[in-house]
Amino acid sequence: MKVKVLQNIMDANDQLASRNQQLLDKSNVLALNIMSSPGAGKTSLILETIKRLKDRTRIAVVEGDIASTIDADRISKEEVPVVQINTGGQCHIDANMINNALESLPLEDIDLLLIENVGNLVCPAEFKTGAHKRVMLLSVPEGDDKPYKYPLMFTLSAAIVVNKIDMLPFSDFDMTAFQRGVNGLNPKARIFQVSCKTGEGIESWVAWLESEVKDR
Amino acid sequence: MKVKVLQNIMDANDQLASRNQQLLDKSNVLALNIMSSPGAGKTSLILETIKRLKDRTRIAVVEGDIASTIDADRISKEEVPVVQINTGGQCHIDANMINNALESLPLEDIDLLLIENVGNLVCPAEFKTGAHKRVMLLSVPEGDDKPYKYPLMFTLSAAIVVNKIDMLPFSDFDMTAFQRGVNGLNPKARIFQVSCKTGEGIESWVAWLESEVKDR
Repeated sequence: MKVKVLQNIMDANDQLASRNQQLLDKSNVLALNIMSSPGAGKTSLILETIKRLKDRTRIAVVEGDIASTIDADRISKEEVPVVQINTGGQCHIDANMINNALESLPLEDIDLLLIENVGNLVCPAEFKTGAHKRVMLLSVPEGDDKPYKYPLMFTLSAAIVVNKIDMLPFSDFDMTAFQRGVNGLNPKARIFQVSCKTGEGIESWVAWLESEVKDR
Repeated sequence: MKVKVLQNIMDANDQLASRNQQLLDKSNVLALNIMSSPGAGKTSLILETIKRLKDRTRIAVVEGDIASTIDADRISKEEVPVVQINTGGQCHIDANMINNALESLPLEDIDLLLIENVGNLVCPAEFKTGAHKRVMLLSVPEGDDKPYKYPLMFTLSAAIVVNKIDMLPFSDFDMTAFQRGVNGLNPKARIFQVSCKTGEGIESWVAWLESEVKDR
């Protein structure tokens, strides 16, 4: 009984996610669903991306948080359209929330939509939003064992960004072990090593993003 | 309809959690539900606690993970009873899982049960396990804004352990702002500042834990 109800919710979510993707495709918008643990640096990565890309790509942002508008406030300083979703306790963004957000965005004037999911390595992976690709962010202080503990997130992501590489000297994070863990689950995933603090590695990430926008 | 079903699941979980607590009380075991983001250092804190406390307090551990036995393997080297729960995708430990774990632990020979929840700042706060108190761990690299973004977790916790304080010099974490955020939600919460890497601050945390075991 319990499983059946959950199934129905998922089906309804999947249908709505497809409708969101059709809406995005009609306006030729590439949408990415960006996921990570709390504090891994999703908002910082989005800010660094906007700074480098906004002169040649029209970007908009959807910020998902359980409560507060801290992240949307940071983004809005960059003068790009931003919508804050407060999930009211829910641990992930679902397709219905994105549907509401899309209605308040000028889709015809956007090339790239960055959706920042709720900080959580589990539930956001289970719910489609309508985004074309998933990107996950992992920060060095979280440790290199995360692919073994949160396999779904790593399996579904097209790109995995390892942030805070400036902390590698103070950490026992083993990049080779981490890459091996990712390859075992998802050999096609692109892995980027970046520091949003020092700017290291951000250019390759932005170049990938730009090629994805062109290929859409 | 959806809400009603969820309500029923929650009620059943609450009842089972009460039963777990009765079982623990019968054997005079204090149980703590330890929660944090992925990679904040739950297993490291448990290991440091065991090393300092195991000569005078009989400790057992329940390890909750979506997949893998990495954490239980680390704990088992300390020669304390440990049970691994693999939640099979579920983003939190529920009372039924703890009920199963309690059945395989020698409760009469235990004073303190440390339950390591799945790494997640959202869902674990919503599900009672039967533990007497909740402890949350936050690590410095996650940032000082987390009380505003994940208020439920901070509101319910009896103690909040800030780990990785050795990283404070490389971080813009503002401890005063963090304490202000916690106090606004939960003025009674005890805050401990520790580094599982250097050992700093662990003694005060262990002293608190020991007094809680004595007062149970």
